[in-house]
Amino acid sequence: MESAEYKKQYDEYLARAEKALNQACERYLPEGSDVCRAARYSLLGGGKRIRAVLVLAVCDMLHGNAEAAEQFAAAVEMLHCYSLIHDDLPCMDNDDMRRGKPSCHKAFGESTAMLAGDVLLTEAFEAVAGAPTPASVCVHAAQALGAGAGSRGMVYGQELDLKYEALAAAEEQLRLIHRHKTGALINAAIQMGGAAAQADEVQRKALEAYAYGIGLVFQIVDDVLDVTGTAEQLGKPIGSDSENGKTTFATLFGVDGAMQLAEKLNDETCTALRDAFGEKSAFLEQLARTLLNRRS
Amino acid sequence: MESAEYKKQYDEYLARAEKALNQACERYLPEGSDVCRAARYSLLGGGKRIRAVLVLAVCDMLHGNAEAAEQFAAAVEMLHCYSLIHDDLPCMDNDDMRRGKPSCHKAFGESTAMLAGDVLLTEAFEAVAGAPTPASVCVHAAQALGAGAGSRGMVYGQELDLKYEALAAAEEQLRLIHRHKTGALINAAIQMGGAAAQADEVQRKALEAYAYGIGLVFQIVDDVLDVTGTAEQLGKPIGSDSENGKTTFATLFGVDGAMQLAEKLNDETCTALRDAFGEKSAFLEQLARTLLNRRS
Repeated sequence: MESAEYKKQYDEYLARAEKALNQACERYLPEGSDVCRAARYSLLGGGKRIRAVLVLAVCDMLHGNAEAAEQFAAAVEMLHCYSLIHDDLPCMDNDDMRRGKPSCHKAFGESTAMLAGDVLLTEAFEAVAGAPTPASVCVHAAQALGAGAGSRGMVYGQELDLKYEALAAAEEQLRLIHRHKTGALINAAIQMGGAAAQADEVQRKALEAYAYGIGLVFQIVDDVLDVTGTAEQLGKPIGSDSENGKTTFATLFGVDGAMQLAEKLNDETCTALRDAFGEKSAFLEQLARTLLNRRS
Repeated sequence: MESAEYKKQYDEYLARAEKALNQACERYLPEGSDVCRAARYSLLGGGKRIRAVLVLAVCDMLHGNAEAAEQFAAAVEMLHCYSLIHDDLPCMDNDDMRRGKPSCHKAFGESTAMLAGDVLLTEAFEAVAGAPTPASVCVHAAQALGAGAGSRGMVYGQELDLKYEALAAAEEQLRLIHRHKTGALINAAIQMGGAAAQADEVQRKALEAYAYGIGLVFQIVDDVLDVTGTAEQLGKPIGSDSENGKTTFATLFGVDGAMQLAEKLNDETCTALRDAFGEKSAFLEQLARTLLNRRS
Protein backbone atom coordinates (compact mmCIF):
# COMPACT_ATOMS: atom_id res chain seq x y z
CA MET A 1 0.00 0.00 0.00
CA GLU A 2 1.36 3.39 -0.93
CA SER A 3 2.21 5.76 1.84
CA ALA A 4 -0.25 8.47 0.75
CA GLU A 5 -3.09 5.99 0.41
CA TYR A 6 -2.26 4.53 3.81
CA LYS A 7 -2.14 7.94 5.42
CA LYS A 8 -5.51 8.89 3.94
CA GLN A 9 -7.08 5.68 5.15
CA TYR A 10 -5.54 6.06 8.60
CA ASP A 11 -6.83 9.61 8.92
CA GLU A 12 -10.28 8.44 7.96
CA TYR A 13 -10.23 5.77 10.67
CA LEU A 14 -8.86 8.29 13.14
CA ALA A 15 -11.67 10.74 12.37
CA ARG A 16 -14.27 8.01 12.83
CA ALA A 17 -12.62 6.98 16.10
CA GLU A 18 -12.64 10.55 17.44
CA LYS A 19 -16.27 10.96 16.46
CA ALA A 20 -17.15 7.71 18.20
CA LEU A 21 -15.25 8.82 21.30
CA ASN A 22 -17.07 12.12 21.39
CA GLN A 23 -20.40 10.34 21.09
CA ALA A 24 -19.39 7.94 23.86
CA CYS A 25 -18.58 10.93 26.08
CA GLU A 26 -22.03 12.36 25.46
CA ARG A 27 -23.69 9.07 26.25
CA TYR A 28 -21.59 7.63 29.01
CA LEU A 29 -19.75 10.49 30.73
CA PRO A 30 -22.44 13.03 31.63
CA GLU A 31 -21.70 16.69 32.31
CA GLY A 32 -21.87 17.90 35.88
CA SER A 33 -19.70 15.18 37.32
CA ASP A 34 -16.09 15.89 38.28
CA VAL A 35 -15.23 12.24 37.81
CA CYS A 36 -16.59 12.28 34.28
CA ARG A 37 -14.80 15.54 33.57
CA ALA A 38 -11.55 13.91 34.66
CA ALA A 39 -12.34 10.89 32.48
CA ARG A 40 -12.98 13.13 29.46
CA TYR A 41 -9.76 15.06 30.15
CA SER A 42 -7.75 11.87 29.85
CA LEU A 43 -9.84 10.24 27.14
CA LEU A 44 -9.97 13.15 24.72
CA GLY A 45 -6.45 14.40 25.38
CA GLY A 46 -4.85 12.93 22.28
CA GLY A 47 -3.17 9.57 22.02
CA LYS A 48 -2.41 7.51 18.95
CA ARG A 49 -5.78 5.66 18.97
CA ILE A 50 -4.04 2.58 17.65
CA ARG A 51 -6.53 0.25 19.32
CA ALA A 52 -9.51 2.11 17.88
CA VAL A 53 -7.99 2.14 14.41
CA LEU A 54 -7.33 -1.59 14.69
CA VAL A 55 -10.99 -2.29 15.52
CA LEU A 56 -12.13 -0.29 12.50
CA ALA A 57 -9.51 -1.66 10.10
CA VAL A 58 -10.15 -5.30 10.98
CA CYS A 59 -13.90 -4.82 10.67
CA ASP A 60 -13.35 -3.14 7.30
CA MET A 61 -11.04 -5.87 6.04
CA LEU A 62 -13.73 -8.45 6.81
CA HIS A 63 -16.64 -6.29 5.57
CA GLY A 64 -18.32 -6.08 8.97
CA ASN A 65 -20.79 -3.71 10.63
CA ALA A 66 -19.09 -0.29 10.70
CA GLU A 67 -21.40 1.26 13.29
CA ALA A 68 -20.85 -1.53 15.76
CA ALA A 69 -17.10 -1.31 15.17
CA GLU A 70 -17.16 2.41 15.94
CA GLN A 71 -18.79 1.80 19.29
CA PHE A 72 -16.33 -1.01 20.03
CA ALA A 73 -13.48 1.32 19.02
CA ALA A 74 -14.64 3.89 21.55
CA ALA A 75 -14.97 1.19 24.19
CA VAL A 76 -11.45 -0.15 23.77
CA GLU A 77 -9.99 3.36 23.97
CA MET A 78 -12.00 3.98 27.15
CA LEU A 79 -10.60 0.79 28.58
CA HIS A 80 -7.05 1.66 27.52
CA CYS A 81 -7.47 5.12 29.05
CA TYR A 82 -8.61 3.69 32.40
CA SER A 83 -5.48 1.55 32.49
CA LEU A 84 -3.25 4.59 31.90
CA ILE A 85 -4.97 6.61 34.62
CA HIS A 86 -4.63 3.85 37.20
CA ASP A 87 -1.10 3.06 36.05
CA ASP A 88 -0.02 6.67 36.61
CA LEU A 89 -1.31 6.81 40.20
CA PRO A 90 1.20 7.22 43.04
CA CYS A 91 0.66 3.66 44.26
CA MET A 92 1.57 2.36 40.79
CA ASP A 93 4.10 4.08 38.50
CA ASN A 94 3.63 7.55 40.03
CA ASP A 95 3.86 9.40 36.72
CA ASP A 96 3.13 13.13 36.71
CA MET A 97 2.89 13.54 32.95
CA ARG A 98 0.91 11.73 30.28
CA ARG A 99 0.50 12.65 26.62
CA GLY A 100 2.28 15.95 27.19
CA LYS A 101 0.09 17.20 30.01
CA PRO A 102 -0.39 16.54 33.73
CA SER A 103 -1.60 13.02 34.40
CA CYS A 104 -5.18 12.64 35.62
CA HIS A 105 -4.42 12.56 39.36
CA LYS A 106 -2.11 15.56 39.03
CA ALA A 107 -4.92 17.52 37.42
CA PHE A 108 -7.89 16.25 39.47
CA GLY A 109 -6.54 14.60 42.61
CA GLU A 110 -6.09 10.95 43.43
CA SER A 111 -9.59 9.94 44.44
CA THR A 112 -11.20 11.57 41.41
CA ALA A 113 -8.61 10.00 39.11
CA MET A 114 -9.18 6.55 40.56
CA LEU A 115 -12.94 6.92 40.12
CA ALA A 116 -12.39 8.28 36.59
CA GLY A 117 -10.55 5.05 35.78
CA ASP A 118 -13.32 3.01 37.37
CA VAL A 119 -15.99 4.82 35.40
CA LEU A 120 -14.17 4.42 32.09
CA LEU A 121 -13.76 0.70 32.69
CA THR A 122 -17.43 0.32 33.58
CA GLU A 123 -18.74 2.45 30.73
CA ALA A 124 -16.51 0.66 28.22
CA PHE A 125 -18.51 -2.49 28.89
CA GLU A 126 -21.79 -0.58 28.84
CA ALA A 127 -20.82 0.81 25.43
CA VAL A 128 -20.10 -2.69 24.13
CA ALA A 129 -23.40 -4.00 25.49
CA GLY A 130 -25.27 -1.12 23.87
CA ALA A 131 -23.71 -1.34 20.41
CA PRO A 132 -26.17 -1.24 17.48
CA THR A 133 -25.73 -4.86 16.40
CA PRO A 134 -27.21 -8.28 17.25
CA ALA A 135 -26.81 -9.30 20.89
CA SER A 136 -24.56 -12.23 19.97
CA VAL A 137 -22.04 -9.80 18.46
CA CYS A 138 -22.10 -7.63 21.61
CA VAL A 139 -21.52 -10.71 23.73
CA HIS A 140 -18.52 -11.82 21.63
CA ALA A 141 -17.05 -8.35 21.83
CA ALA A 142 -17.62 -8.12 25.59
CA GLN A 143 -15.96 -11.48 26.07
CA ALA A 144 -12.99 -10.38 23.96
CA LEU A 145 -12.68 -7.16 25.93
CA GLY A 146 -12.97 -8.94 29.27
CA ALA A 147 -10.40 -11.56 28.30
CA GLY A 148 -7.95 -8.92 27.09
CA ALA A 149 -8.38 -6.58 30.02
CA GLY A 150 -8.78 -8.93 32.95
CA SER A 151 -7.09 -11.55 35.07
CA ARG A 152 -5.55 -13.41 32.14
CA GLY A 153 -4.78 -10.27 30.18
CA MET A 154 -3.80 -6.70 30.92
CA VAL A 155 -4.23 -6.66 34.69
CA TYR A 156 -2.05 -9.74 34.96
CA GLY A 157 0.52 -7.91 32.83
CA GLN A 158 0.45 -4.98 35.23
CA GLU A 159 0.99 -7.34 38.12
CA LEU A 160 3.99 -8.93 36.36
CA ASP A 161 5.35 -5.50 35.51
CA LEU A 162 5.26 -4.42 39.16
CA LYS A 163 6.81 -7.71 40.22
CA TYR A 164 9.74 -7.47 37.83
CA GLU A 165 10.47 -3.86 38.67
CA ALA A 166 12.26 -5.20 41.70
CA LEU A 167 13.75 -8.25 39.95
CA ALA A 168 16.00 -8.60 36.94
CA ALA A 169 13.85 -9.99 34.14
CA ALA A 170 15.21 -12.21 31.37
CA GLU A 171 13.86 -12.10 27.81
CA GLU A 172 11.29 -14.77 28.56
CA GLN A 173 9.78 -12.77 31.43
CA LEU A 174 9.82 -9.56 29.42
CA ARG A 175 7.88 -11.24 26.64
CA LEU A 176 5.42 -12.61 29.18
CA ILE A 177 4.90 -9.16 30.70
CA HIS A 178 4.33 -7.48 27.36
CA ARG A 179 2.16 -10.25 25.98
CA HIS A 180 -0.23 -9.55 28.82
CA LYS A 181 0.29 -5.86 29.53
CA THR A 182 0.13 -4.64 25.93
CA GLY A 183 -0.61 -7.58 23.64
CA ALA A 184 -3.79 -8.76 25.30
CA LEU A 185 -5.67 -5.48 24.89
CA ILE A 186 -4.42 -5.05 21.32
CA ASN A 187 -5.75 -8.53 20.67
CA ALA A 188 -9.05 -7.55 22.31
CA ALA A 189 -9.33 -4.57 19.94
CA ILE A 190 -8.61 -6.75 16.94
CA GLN A 191 -11.02 -9.46 18.06
CA MET A 192 -13.72 -6.84 18.61
CA GLY A 193 -13.20 -5.74 15.02
CA GLY A 194 -13.53 -9.40 14.09
CA ALA A 195 -16.68 -9.73 16.20
CA ALA A 196 -18.28 -6.80 14.36
CA ALA A 197 -17.66 -8.80 11.16
CA GLN A 198 -18.68 -12.13 12.72
CA ALA A 199 -15.23 -13.56 11.97
CA ASP A 200 -14.89 -17.33 12.00
CA GLU A 201 -12.49 -19.37 14.13
CA VAL A 202 -9.74 -19.54 11.49
CA GLN A 203 -9.86 -15.79 10.95
CA ARG A 204 -9.80 -15.18 14.70
CA LYS A 205 -6.66 -17.30 15.09
CA ALA A 206 -4.86 -15.46 12.29
CA LEU A 207 -5.88 -12.12 13.78
CA GLU A 208 -4.60 -13.21 17.18
CA ALA A 209 -1.15 -13.97 15.77
CA TYR A 210 -1.05 -10.55 14.15
CA ALA A 211 -2.21 -8.88 17.39
CA TYR A 212 0.48 -10.41 19.58
CA GLY A 213 3.09 -9.83 16.86
CA ILE A 214 2.48 -6.10 16.58
CA GLY A 215 1.99 -5.83 20.33
CA LEU A 216 5.48 -7.14 20.98
CA VAL A 217 7.03 -4.99 18.27
CA PHE A 218 5.23 -1.98 19.73
CA GLN A 219 6.71 -2.65 23.14
CA ILE A 220 10.26 -3.25 21.90
CA VAL A 221 10.11 0.06 20.02
CA ASP A 222 8.77 1.71 23.20
CA ASP A 223 11.79 0.48 25.09
CA VAL A 224 14.12 1.76 22.39
CA LEU A 225 12.39 5.17 22.27
CA ASP A 226 12.80 5.50 26.03
CA VAL A 227 16.56 5.57 25.27
CA THR A 228 16.69 7.35 21.90
CA GLY A 229 13.62 9.61 21.90
CA THR A 230 13.14 13.06 23.38
CA ALA A 231 10.68 14.03 26.07
CA GLU A 232 9.07 16.43 23.66
CA GLN A 233 8.45 13.73 21.06
CA LEU A 234 7.03 11.31 23.59
CA GLY A 235 5.06 13.70 25.79
CA LYS A 236 6.54 12.07 28.89
CA PRO A 237 9.96 11.95 30.59
CA ILE A 238 12.53 9.77 28.81
CA GLY A 239 15.14 7.52 30.33
CA SER A 240 12.74 6.61 33.15
CA ASP A 241 13.22 2.88 32.56
CA SER A 242 17.01 2.90 32.85
CA GLU A 243 16.91 5.33 35.78
CA ASN A 244 14.67 2.90 37.58
CA GLY A 245 17.09 0.07 36.76
CA LYS A 246 14.32 -1.69 34.87
CA THR A 247 15.11 -4.47 32.42
CA THR A 248 13.89 -3.62 28.90
CA PHE A 249 14.57 -4.95 25.42
CA ALA A 250 17.01 -2.05 25.07
CA THR A 251 18.97 -3.01 28.19
CA LEU A 252 18.90 -6.71 27.21
CA PHE A 253 19.99 -6.39 23.56
CA GLY A 254 21.12 -2.79 23.14
CA VAL A 255 19.29 -0.34 20.89
CA ASP A 256 20.47 -1.93 17.63
CA GLY A 257 19.88 -5.49 18.75
CA ALA A 258 16.39 -4.63 19.97
CA MET A 259 15.51 -2.95 16.68
CA GLN A 260 16.80 -5.95 14.70
CA LEU A 261 14.56 -8.21 16.77
CA ALA A 262 11.61 -5.89 16.19
CA GLU A 263 12.22 -5.90 12.43
CA LYS A 264 12.42 -9.68 12.31
CA LEU A 265 9.20 -10.04 14.30
CA ASN A 266 7.49 -7.49 12.12
CA ASP A 267 8.43 -9.36 8.93
CA GLU A 268 7.10 -12.63 10.30
CA THR A 269 3.89 -10.98 11.48
CA CYS A 270 3.18 -9.27 8.16
CA THR A 271 3.96 -12.39 6.12
CA ALA A 272 1.59 -14.50 8.21
CA LEU A 273 -1.18 -11.91 7.90
CA ARG A 274 -0.80 -11.77 4.12
CA ASP A 275 -0.89 -15.57 3.96
CA ALA A 276 -4.19 -15.53 5.84
CA PHE A 277 -5.99 -12.59 4.23
CA GLY A 278 -4.18 -11.85 0.95
CA GLU A 279 -4.36 -8.39 -0.58
CA LYS A 280 -6.98 -7.23 1.90
CA SER A 281 -4.33 -7.18 4.62
CA ALA A 282 -2.42 -4.27 3.03
CA PHE A 283 -3.57 -1.62 5.49
CA LEU A 284 -2.84 -3.71 8.56
CA GLU A 285 0.61 -4.61 7.20
CA GLN A 286 1.40 -0.97 6.64
CA LEU A 287 0.14 -0.15 10.11
CA ALA A 288 2.52 -2.73 11.55
CA ARG A 289 5.44 -1.16 9.69
CA THR A 290 4.43 2.29 10.89
CA LEU A 291 4.46 1.12 14.49
CA LEU A 292 7.93 -0.33 13.88
CA ASN A 293 9.30 2.89 12.39
CA ARG A 294 7.60 5.41 14.68
CA ARG A 295 9.57 8.12 16.47
CA SER A 296 7.07 8.79 19.25
CA MET B 1 -44.12 -15.66 54.96
CA GLU B 2 -43.20 -17.42 58.18
CA SER B 3 -39.84 -16.72 59.66
CA ALA B 4 -38.63 -20.34 59.48
CA GLU B 5 -39.70 -20.70 55.87
CA TYR B 6 -38.02 -17.41 55.00
CA LYS B 7 -34.83 -18.45 56.75
CA LYS B 8 -34.74 -21.75 54.91
CA GLN B 9 -35.26 -20.06 51.57
CA TYR B 10 -32.66 -17.41 52.35
CA ASP B 11 -30.10 -20.03 53.29
CA GLU B 12 -30.77 -21.88 50.07
CA TYR B 13 -30.17 -18.72 48.03
CA LEU B 14 -27.07 -18.01 50.08
CA ALA B 15 -25.69 -21.48 49.43
CA ARG B 16 -26.31 -21.09 45.70
CA ALA B 17 -24.66 -17.67 45.76
CA GLU B 18 -21.57 -19.01 47.53
CA LYS B 19 -21.33 -21.88 45.08
CA ALA B 20 -21.61 -19.48 42.15
CA LEU B 21 -18.94 -17.25 43.70
CA ASN B 22 -16.58 -20.17 44.12
CA GLN B 23 -17.13 -21.19 40.51
CA ALA B 24 -16.52 -17.62 39.38
CA CYS B 25 -13.23 -17.63 41.31
CA GLU B 26 -12.16 -20.80 39.52
CA ARG B 27 -13.04 -19.37 36.15
CA TYR B 28 -12.15 -15.73 36.43
CA LEU B 29 -9.53 -15.37 39.19
CA PRO B 30 -6.79 -17.87 38.35
CA GLU B 31 -4.32 -19.22 40.90
CA GLY B 32 -0.77 -17.97 40.76
CA SER B 33 -1.64 -14.29 40.62
CA ASP B 34 -1.24 -12.11 43.71
CA VAL B 35 -3.88 -9.74 42.39
CA CYS B 36 -6.38 -12.57 42.02
CA ARG B 37 -5.45 -13.87 45.47
CA ALA B 38 -6.22 -10.42 46.88
CA ALA B 39 -9.50 -10.37 44.96
CA ARG B 40 -10.47 -13.77 46.34
CA TYR B 41 -9.52 -12.67 49.87
CA SER B 42 -12.01 -9.84 49.68
CA LEU B 43 -14.64 -11.64 47.63
CA LEU B 44 -14.86 -14.81 49.69
CA GLY B 45 -14.41 -13.14 53.07
CA GLY B 46 -18.03 -13.16 54.12
CA GLY B 47 -20.54 -10.41 53.57
CA LYS B 48 -24.30 -10.54 53.59
CA ARG B 49 -24.61 -11.34 49.86
CA ILE B 50 -27.80 -9.31 49.73
CA ARG B 51 -27.25 -8.40 46.08
CA ALA B 52 -26.70 -12.01 45.06
CA VAL B 53 -29.76 -13.16 46.99
CA LEU B 54 -31.81 -10.44 45.30
CA VAL B 55 -30.77 -11.65 41.83
CA LEU B 56 -31.78 -15.21 42.70
CA ALA B 57 -35.02 -14.30 44.47
CA VAL B 58 -36.27 -12.01 41.69
CA CYS B 59 -35.44 -14.61 39.05
CA ASP B 60 -37.27 -17.23 41.12
CA MET B 61 -40.33 -15.03 41.64
CA LEU B 62 -40.61 -14.62 37.86
CA HIS B 63 -39.75 -18.25 37.06
CA GLY B 64 -36.56 -17.38 35.18
CA ASN B 65 -33.36 -19.20 34.24
CA ALA B 66 -31.73 -20.20 37.53
CA GLU B 67 -28.29 -20.93 36.06
CA ALA B 68 -28.03 -17.56 34.40
CA ALA B 69 -29.18 -15.89 37.61
CA GLU B 70 -26.44 -17.66 39.55
CA GLN B 71 -23.78 -16.32 37.24
CA PHE B 72 -25.31 -12.82 37.43
CA ALA B 73 -25.40 -13.15 41.23
CA ALA B 74 -21.67 -13.87 41.29
CA ALA B 75 -21.05 -10.96 38.94
CA VAL B 76 -22.90 -8.41 41.04
CA GLU B 77 -21.05 -9.52 44.18
CA MET B 78 -17.74 -9.18 42.32
CA LEU B 79 -18.73 -5.71 41.31
CA HIS B 80 -19.83 -4.80 44.83
CA CYS B 81 -16.56 -6.18 46.19
CA TYR B 82 -14.47 -4.07 43.79
CA SER B 83 -16.29 -0.98 45.03
CA LEU B 84 -15.51 -1.83 48.65
CA ILE B 85 -11.81 -2.43 47.90
CA HIS B 86 -11.42 0.87 46.08
CA ASP B 87 -13.54 2.69 48.65
CA ASP B 88 -11.27 1.50 51.47
CA LEU B 89 -8.06 2.76 49.81
CA PRO B 90 -6.11 5.59 51.47
CA CYS B 91 -7.07 8.09 48.75
CA MET B 92 -10.76 7.34 49.42
CA ASP B 93 -12.13 6.45 52.88
CA ASN B 94 -8.84 5.04 54.19
CA ASP B 95 -10.46 2.18 56.10
CA ASP B 96 -8.20 -0.43 57.67
CA MET B 97 -10.89 -2.97 58.47
CA ARG B 98 -13.62 -4.58 56.39
CA ARG B 99 -15.91 -7.44 57.32
CA GLY B 100 -13.95 -8.02 60.53
CA LYS B 101 -10.53 -8.40 58.94
CA PRO B 102 -7.86 -6.15 57.43
CA SER B 103 -9.07 -4.39 54.32
CA CYS B 104 -7.55 -5.51 51.02
CA HIS B 105 -4.80 -2.89 50.84
CA LYS B 106 -3.85 -3.50 54.47
CA ALA B 107 -3.40 -7.19 53.68
CA PHE B 108 -1.86 -6.95 50.18
CA GLY B 109 -0.60 -3.40 49.69
CA GLU B 110 -2.13 -0.55 47.77
CA SER B 111 -1.14 -1.36 44.21
CA THR B 112 -2.27 -4.99 44.47
CA ALA B 113 -5.55 -3.91 46.08
CA MET B 114 -6.24 -1.38 43.36
CA LEU B 115 -5.58 -3.98 40.68
CA ALA B 116 -7.72 -6.50 42.60
CA GLY B 117 -10.60 -4.04 42.37
CA ASP B 118 -9.91 -3.49 38.68
CA VAL B 119 -9.86 -7.21 37.99
CA LEU B 120 -13.11 -7.83 39.88
CA LEU B 121 -14.86 -5.09 37.93
CA THR B 122 -13.58 -6.44 34.61
CA GLU B 123 -14.34 -10.07 35.37
CA ALA B 124 -17.81 -9.21 36.61
CA PHE B 125 -18.67 -8.12 33.09
CA GLU B 126 -16.92 -11.12 31.60
CA ALA B 127 -19.03 -13.35 33.84
CA VAL B 128 -22.21 -11.65 32.67
CA ALA B 129 -21.19 -11.98 29.02
CA GLY B 130 -20.42 -15.67 29.53
CA ALA B 131 -23.64 -16.65 31.33
CA PRO B 132 -25.38 -19.78 30.02
CA THR B 133 -28.38 -18.05 28.51
CA PRO B 134 -29.34 -16.37 25.20
CA ALA B 135 -27.13 -13.45 24.18
CA SER B 136 -30.02 -10.98 24.47
CA VAL B 137 -30.36 -11.85 28.16
CA CYS B 138 -26.62 -11.33 28.73
CA VAL B 139 -26.81 -7.97 27.01
CA HIS B 140 -29.75 -6.83 29.17
CA ALA B 141 -27.92 -7.91 32.29
CA ALA B 142 -24.69 -6.20 31.21
CA GLN B 143 -26.58 -3.00 30.51
CA ALA B 144 -28.26 -3.16 33.92
CA LEU B 145 -24.92 -3.75 35.62
CA GLY B 146 -23.22 -0.95 33.70
CA ALA B 147 -26.04 1.49 34.41
CA GLY B 148 -26.03 0.64 38.12
CA ALA B 149 -22.27 0.71 38.54
CA GLY B 150 -21.19 3.56 36.29
CA SER B 151 -21.38 7.26 35.69
CA ARG B 152 -25.11 7.56 36.41
CA GLY B 153 -25.01 5.01 39.24
CA MET B 154 -22.60 3.90 41.92
CA VAL B 155 -19.50 5.81 40.85
CA TYR B 156 -21.52 9.02 40.76
CA GLY B 157 -22.71 8.18 44.27
CA GLN B 158 -19.12 7.81 45.43
CA GLU B 159 -18.29 11.17 43.92
CA LEU B 160 -21.23 12.79 45.72
CA ASP B 161 -20.24 11.06 48.94
CA LEU B 162 -16.71 12.48 48.77
CA LYS B 163 -18.07 15.91 47.88
CA TYR B 164 -20.46 16.07 50.83
CA GLU B 165 -17.90 14.85 53.31
CA ALA B 166 -16.65 18.40 53.35
CA LEU B 167 -20.09 20.03 53.15
CA ALA B 168 -23.16 19.79 55.32
CA ALA B 169 -25.72 17.76 53.38
CA ALA B 170 -29.46 18.23 53.72
CA GLU B 171 -31.94 15.36 53.46
CA GLU B 172 -32.32 15.88 49.72
CA GLN B 173 -28.58 15.50 49.09
CA LEU B 174 -28.36 12.50 51.39
CA ARG B 175 -31.10 10.78 49.42
CA LEU B 176 -29.35 11.62 46.17
CA ILE B 177 -26.04 10.18 47.45
CA HIS B 178 -27.63 6.96 48.65
CA ARG B 179 -29.84 6.53 45.61
CA HIS B 180 -26.66 6.40 43.54
CA LYS B 181 -24.12 4.95 45.93
CA THR B 182 -26.25 2.07 47.22
CA GLY B 183 -29.58 2.05 45.40
CA ALA B 184 -28.25 1.88 41.86
CA LEU B 185 -26.29 -1.35 42.36
CA ILE B 186 -29.15 -2.93 44.30
CA ASN B 187 -31.37 -2.04 41.38
CA ALA B 188 -28.80 -3.54 39.00
CA ALA B 189 -28.92 -6.81 40.95
CA ILE B 190 -32.70 -6.85 40.87
CA GLN B 191 -32.85 -5.99 37.17
CA MET B 192 -30.33 -8.75 36.43
CA GLY B 193 -32.66 -11.18 38.19
CA GLY B 194 -35.42 -9.76 36.03
CA ALA B 195 -33.26 -10.14 32.90
CA ALA B 196 -32.72 -13.82 33.70
CA ALA B 197 -36.51 -14.12 33.68
CA GLN B 198 -36.96 -11.85 30.65
CA ALA B 199 -39.13 -9.49 32.71
CA ASP B 200 -41.33 -7.07 30.82
CA GLU B 201 -41.32 -3.28 31.11
CA VAL B 202 -44.10 -3.14 33.73
CA GLN B 203 -42.34 -5.71 35.89
CA ARG B 204 -39.04 -3.88 35.53
CA LYS B 205 -40.60 -0.62 36.75
CA ALA B 206 -42.16 -2.29 39.78
CA LEU B 207 -38.85 -3.97 40.58
CA GLU B 208 -37.05 -0.65 40.30
CA ALA B 209 -39.34 0.96 42.87
CA TYR B 210 -38.69 -1.93 45.24
CA ALA B 211 -34.92 -1.69 44.63
CA TYR B 212 -34.63 2.00 45.46
CA GLY B 213 -37.01 1.58 48.39
CA ILE B 214 -34.99 -1.13 50.12
CA GLY B 215 -31.75 0.61 49.12
CA LEU B 216 -32.72 3.73 51.01
CA VAL B 217 -33.99 1.80 54.03
CA PHE B 218 -30.74 -0.16 54.04
CA GLN B 219 -28.72 3.05 54.14
CA ILE B 220 -30.81 4.70 56.86
CA VAL B 221 -30.39 1.60 59.02
CA ASP B 222 -26.63 1.69 58.28
CA ASP B 223 -26.48 5.23 59.60
CA VAL B 224 -28.40 4.24 62.71
CA LEU B 225 -26.19 1.21 63.34
CA ASP B 226 -23.10 3.41 63.10
CA VAL B 227 -24.46 5.06 66.28
CA THR B 228 -26.15 2.17 68.07
CA GLY B 229 -24.20 -0.90 66.93
CA THR B 230 -20.97 -2.36 68.22
CA ALA B 231 -17.74 -2.76 66.25
CA GLU B 232 -17.96 -6.50 66.85
CA GLN B 233 -21.43 -6.75 65.33
CA LEU B 234 -20.49 -4.67 62.31
CA GLY B 235 -16.97 -5.93 61.68
CA LYS B 236 -15.76 -2.35 61.30
CA PRO B 237 -15.21 0.64 63.61
CA ILE B 238 -18.40 2.37 64.78
CA GLY B 239 -19.02 6.05 65.24
CA SER B 240 -16.81 6.84 62.25
CA ASP B 241 -19.51 8.94 60.60
CA SER B 242 -20.09 11.25 63.56
CA GLU B 243 -16.35 11.47 64.29
CA ASN B 244 -15.85 12.66 60.74
CA GLY B 245 -18.62 15.23 61.21
CA LYS B 246 -20.53 13.57 58.39
CA THR B 247 -24.23 14.23 57.91
CA THR B 248 -26.26 11.02 58.13
CA PHE B 249 -29.93 10.17 58.60
CA ALA B 250 -29.08 9.67 62.28
CA THR B 251 -27.57 13.16 62.65
CA LEU B 252 -30.44 14.71 60.67
CA PHE B 253 -33.38 13.04 62.43
CA GLY B 254 -31.90 11.33 65.49
CA VAL B 255 -31.89 7.55 65.90
CA ASP B 256 -35.63 7.29 66.58
CA GLY B 257 -36.66 9.69 63.84
CA ALA B 258 -34.46 7.90 61.32
CA MET B 259 -35.91 4.52 62.24
CA GLN B 260 -39.46 5.87 61.93
CA LEU B 261 -38.63 7.11 58.44
CA ALA B 262 -37.13 3.73 57.56
CA GLU B 263 -40.25 1.93 58.78
CA LYS B 264 -42.54 4.17 56.79
CA LEU B 265 -40.48 3.71 53.63
CA ASN B 266 -40.38 -0.02 54.17
CA ASP B 267 -44.17 -0.23 54.50
CA GLU B 268 -44.69 1.72 51.30
CA THR B 269 -42.13 -0.40 49.45
CA CYS B 270 -43.62 -3.71 50.54
CA THR B 271 -47.18 -2.62 49.78
CA ALA B 272 -46.22 -1.54 46.26
CA LEU B 273 -44.41 -4.80 45.62
CA ARG B 274 -47.39 -6.84 46.77
CA ASP B 275 -49.69 -4.76 44.55
CA ALA B 276 -47.45 -5.59 41.55
CA PHE B 277 -46.68 -9.26 42.13
CA GLY B 278 -49.23 -10.54 44.65
CA GLU B 279 -48.45 -13.58 46.81
CA LYS B 280 -45.26 -14.30 44.92
CA SER B 281 -43.62 -11.26 46.49
CA ALA B 282 -43.65 -12.79 50.00
CA PHE B 283 -39.94 -13.59 50.11
CA LEU B 284 -38.84 -10.17 48.87
CA GLU B 285 -41.16 -8.46 51.36
CA GLN B 286 -39.72 -10.46 54.20
CA LEU B 287 -36.22 -9.67 52.97
CA ALA B 288 -37.05 -5.97 53.09
CA ARG B 289 -38.27 -6.31 56.68
CA THR B 290 -35.12 -8.21 57.62
CA LEU B 291 -32.94 -5.42 56.25
CA LEU B 292 -35.01 -2.95 58.31
CA ASN B 293 -34.65 -4.92 61.53
CA ARG B 294 -31.03 -6.05 61.18
CA ARG B 295 -28.53 -5.47 63.95
CA SER B 296 -25.40 -5.71 61.81
